[in-house]
Amino acid sequence: MPGFGSPRIHEHKEETMRSTDLLSALHNLPTRSMLAAAVIAAAMLLGAAATNAQGLPPLAKELNPAQTALILVDFQYPFTSPDGANHRNVKKEMDEKHLLEATLDLVRKARSLGVLVVHITEGYSNDYRELDPTNPGGFHRGQILRQAWKIGTKEQSYYEPLLPAQGDKDLFPPPRIQTTAFGGTGLNEILRSRGIKNVAVGGFTTDVCVYATVANAYDLGYHVYALRDAMAGYFTEQAEQMLKNTYPMWSKVIGNEEWLAMLGPARTTQR
Amino acid sequence: MPGFGSPRIHEHKEETMRSTDLLSALHNLPTRSMLAAAVIAAAMLLGAAATNAQGLPPLAKELNPAQTALILVDFQYPFTSPDGANHRNVKKEMDEKHLLEATLDLVRKARSLGVLVVHITEGYSNDYRELDPTNPGGFHRGQILRQAWKIGTKEQSYYEPLLPAQGDKDLFPPPRIQTTAFGGTGLNEILRSRGIKNVAVGGFTTDVCVYATVANAYDLGYHVYALRDAMAGYFTEQAEQMLKNTYPMWSKVIGNEEWLAMLGPARTTQR
Amino acid sequence: MPGFGSPRIHEHKEETMRSTDLLSALHNLPTRSMLAAAVIAAAMLLGAAATNAQGLPPLAKELNPAQTALILVDFQYPFTSPDGANHRNVKKEMDEKHLLEATLDLVRKARSLGVLVVHITEGYSNDYRELDPTNPGGFHRGQILRQAWKIGTKEQSYYEPLLPAQGDKDLFPPPRIQTTAFGGTGLNEILRSRGIKNVAVGGFTTDVCVYATVANAYDLGYHVYALRDAMAGYFTEQAEQMLKNTYPMWSKVIGNEEWLAMLGPARTTQR
Amino acid sequence: MPGFGSPRIHEHKEETMRSTDLLSALHNLPTRSMLAAAVIAAAMLLGAAATNAQGLPPLAKELNPAQTALILVDFQYPFTSPDGANHRNVKKEMDEKHLLEATLDLVRKARSLGVLVVHITEGYSNDYRELDPTNPGGFHRGQILRQAWKIGTKEQSYYEPLLPAQGDKDLFPPPRIQTTAFGGTGLNEILRSRGIKNVAVGGFTTDVCVYATVANAYDLGYHVYALRDAMAGYFTEQAEQMLKNTYPMWSKVIGNEEWLAMLGPARTTQR
Repeated sequence: MPGFGSPRIHEHKEETMRSTDLLSALHNLPTRSMLAAAVIAAAMLLGAAATNAQGLPPLAKELNPAQTALILVDFQYPFTSPDGANHRNVKKEMDEKHLLEATLDLVRKARSLGVLVVHITEGYSNDYRELDPTNPGGFHRGQILRQAWKIGTKEQSYYEPLLPAQGDKDLFPPPRIQTTAFGGTGLNEILRSRGIKNVAVGGFTTDVCVYATVANAYDLGYHVYALRDAMAGYFTEQAEQMLKNTYPMWSKVIGNEEWLAMLGPARTTQR
Repeated sequence: MPGFGSPRIHEHKEETMRSTDLLSALHNLPTRSMLAAAVIAAAMLLGAAATNAQGLPPLAKELNPAQTALILVDFQYPFTSPDGANHRNVKKEMDEKHLLEATLDLVRKARSLGVLVVHITEGYSNDYRELDPTNPGGFHRGQILRQAWKIGTKEQSYYEPLLPAQGDKDLFPPPRIQTTAFGGTGLNEILRSRGIKNVAVGGFTTDVCVYATVANAYDLGYHVYALRDAMAGYFTEQAEQMLKNTYPMWSKVIGNEEWLAMLGPARTTQR
Repeated sequence: MPGFGSPRIHEHKEETMRSTDLLSALHNLPTRSMLAAAVIAAAMLLGAAATNAQGLPPLAKELNPAQTALILVDFQYPFTSPDGANHRNVKKEMDEKHLLEATLDLVRKARSLGVLVVHITEGYSNDYRELDPTNPGGFHRGQILRQAWKIGTKEQSYYEPLLPAQGDKDLFPPPRIQTTAFGGTGLNEILRSRGIKNVAVGGFTTDVCVYATVANAYDLGYHVYALRDAMAGYFTEQAEQMLKNTYPMWSKVIGNEEWLAMLGPARTTQR
Repeated sequence: MPGFGSPRIHEHKEETMRSTDLLSALHNLPTRSMLAAAVIAAAMLLGAAATNAQGLPPLAKELNPAQTALILVDFQYPFTSPDGANHRNVKKEMDEKHLLEATLDLVRKARSLGVLVVHITEGYSNDYRELDPTNPGGFHRGQILRQAWKIGTKEQSYYEPLLPAQGDKDLFPPPRIQTTAFGGTGLNEILRSRGIKNVAVGGFTTDVCVYATVANAYDLGYHVYALRDAMAGYFTEQAEQMLKNTYPMWSKVIGNEEWLAMLGPARTTQR
């Protein structure tokens, strides 16, 4: 890297001035309609060094538990209970995957490795005053029509075996109204202040809130691990398509055991 | 609504105190493990009035152009040009829908109605320094490997006929690196300050960035109109599933003409 | 506004091409160091019409209650009670302004006008697991050291006379850990979905959390009204400086009565 | 940490059930007005372990350059040039601190240590279409009235000696319209994906945009270092008050040399 004051710099400064002149010329074109193209906005300085495509750094094979969080989305009565209103759609996949048992095992191991476990839930006030009943999107409107997911009701209750025991250091933010786990929960800021780099995501459902969380986490800059053993789809066919096509854009789709193995065999960590 | 000082209020205050006592009792349980359940977090006050499910307000049949934006996502060379790297996947649907011509017509009409047109693009610096090449999600990694979408290159250029003409009041934020149109662009804040309530979204692709934008817009509180004539899917089958199953959760899926009709026959508006 | 296909447009398109050529030339300069200047990033298309500085639209003289929220920040025991740990610093100003009585009156009138009243509080879990005790900023570290503001304790309790009565439609989001009322509360998204354009802010303190909320609200695109009768400063001299110098950058600093008057004499509104 | 199924757990579960019963009882109170108090929302599970106030972890004495960014705010013509419109207010302090020279030295050293240097600027389109001229806050309204800070003009230009040279890896996001450096720039997400934990902030002005950036960075979870040698106040008295009173809430206020010393004598780092 050349220091300030090197000949190269002077050469650079000259060019900077030249480009400034050009842009200034552009700016002063009589009609000012120039720059009308998208072109203009170069978000970052154009770097000099050519990136060697073959030279991409390798992906992580190990994860530091102290920098890793496990986010569980909507393990609540409507999905987890046979009597739940949404259970019918997820039952077959849950049974095949032994999803609840597998998730309990996953969470137990994650806790013991020092991974931060985060429970994200959905819930609304009794009169849904925080929602907009005139929104043409059907998600919240449906909840209102069904008078569903009210905070404090059995229907909104958490799957009890997953509840943190005394001494567990899990996070349990208030119920959210947005689809992504990060929406309105302050989770992103808490995870940063905890030094979390990697997030693994499971829960309900593969094609709705889990997908929103995974895509959002990627946009936020996390390394995301989509735990396919710990999630079930609402629209099965769509969920399968997503896991095959677009989940890999935002995450590594991975089995519970393979993910746990990345955290190290018997590592325990102090943050 | 009872005023302060009404008998009802006093009754209420008593109960408030009672609930405070209960919670304070909860808090002082010897082991403090109480409240360990998810239960606790009641995000909002529980309202008294029962919401009448049948009484949901009707959805809008008309839109005020002054409160409406049309967001075009990634009308750029890789998709729009026959020589573009991503064109093959969208070509069939684009041809069937006459997508480019239909979008030009849509934009022309939207502008003339006073709808705010927003052009959102993707783009990266020459050495991708704003990206994380070690992220296991493949989206950005793929761009780096293909050395694609560099700001200022032909490949990153905008579909020229859509470029705003002199006098058009379109917004053209800098290229973004996130999937949703709102990510890192400041668009949400600008739209609020413009009083935008409704957003219509089209572009590339139905199953990737357009979907991210639509779902995100719903989370942000907008009324969203997903313009099915103005979008094309990358993974066709998945895109169809999404339009059928999950798009309606976040938006009204609508044709261009039907959406334009909501804006009024010949209304012109001043904000 | 010229339509597409007008001569003016063709002229424009030509210029677009010219600017594209220039930028493409810039891009291909041998050393690629061009554009190294800040210059580059033109966030928006440069418009053609000169803004007439004298022609700025007038500021609102009236506010629509249905588009207005009153945000109360941290009316909690440490500030409001004579026994509170932070009371000493705000006592004099509270006494002079009869702040609590004035705020009760303000809230009562705001509710009756149909203004959305929002109560924002601060609060932490019993072991502060959501905070980072290693952060060099002293705000949270101080709370941990004093074992202060724990959710459910008397110290964290709300000023009771401000509590919504049955039937009041106030919002009462969960306690927050960030300084701005919008941080991690989902408040911004709820306000948008309610169509809120104007926010008035009062509470504790003028120089800390109220200031953070006011500045943040401006960045988010709201019209902000800083209610000087309803706030008290922690560091009195600094608070005075801020009210004089920088509050007017983000808000209209206004008295309670003057603000209420903007909402109309006896208007009641249905959203 | 007790495992699942331990006696302690069973004890815990019982209590969980008890608290559930209580809350359910609360919920079913005839008038449902209970919980009307603020009380309710317990954001996180209340932990069992008492935090030892004396046991707070020590603050960092060293910073890893690979996890550190230096954010420079608004080193632009209006402040840095003797002819700039805002220069008068900052001149005295700049002279006393030899601010420009000191910052150049700081940046040079930061780059050589491997610290990520980020240049944040302010700028608007030619017709300010991204702003709301009806906002009662005076900040943007003032820019429009003065027709100031237009992208591409001399007035908006960057202080040239700070411009990155070829090979420098600085970030230079597009000009922003919000006060905080994180507003609408995507900076937060980029910094996360780069693994940045610490940010040092300098620039213009101590009491306006630098303060907004510092407070916002704290809310976002960063460890913040406020570089008092590298900033100047607009309202001198207020800036002094802020540095003394409230900056320490969000940051460690520190001199350039002391901060550089924390980064290690001659460490060079690879991320």
